[in-house]
Amino acid sequence: MSTSEYQVTGMTCGHCEMSVREEVGTLPGVQDVQVSHETGRLVITAAEPLDDAAVIAAVDEAGYQAVRTS
Amino acid sequence: MSTSEYQVTGMTCGHCEMSVREEVGTLPGVQDVQVSHETGRLVITAAEPLDDAAVIAAVDEAGYQAVRTS
Repeated sequence: MSTSEYQVTGMTCGHCEMSVREEVGTLPGVQDVQVSHETGRLVITAAEPLDDAAVIAAVDEAGYQAVRTS
Repeated sequence: MSTSEYQVTGMTCGHCEMSVREEVGTLPGVQDVQVSHETGRLVITAAEPLDDAAVIAAVDEAGYQAVRTS
């Protein structure tokens, strides 16, 4: 089990959170996605460590920018 | 052909506009919906004059508040 955190900029509402959740949820091995438009915090739980570039690309696909924070 | 305008509060992004557009678009006779989260302006074109309460209820269903302006 692996948890990674990102700071996401550009989300303004629950719809934005849902877009991020959906895109990140398509990555293989993802088990849980917590995301808040209020804090910009994105916490992903996955079976194995995720590729940062894949996460950042998924968030970009949703229309936002992510930076790995931990 | 009838055009009516409303001021909508609470929209923050394009997803919000889409929600309003979808809900208002389900009202019978609606031919065009213009909506901006930046101005909050909602302009509906319909075959016949729409019932204000139905429009306000549709916007409420999307999660926002509308007030008729013209």
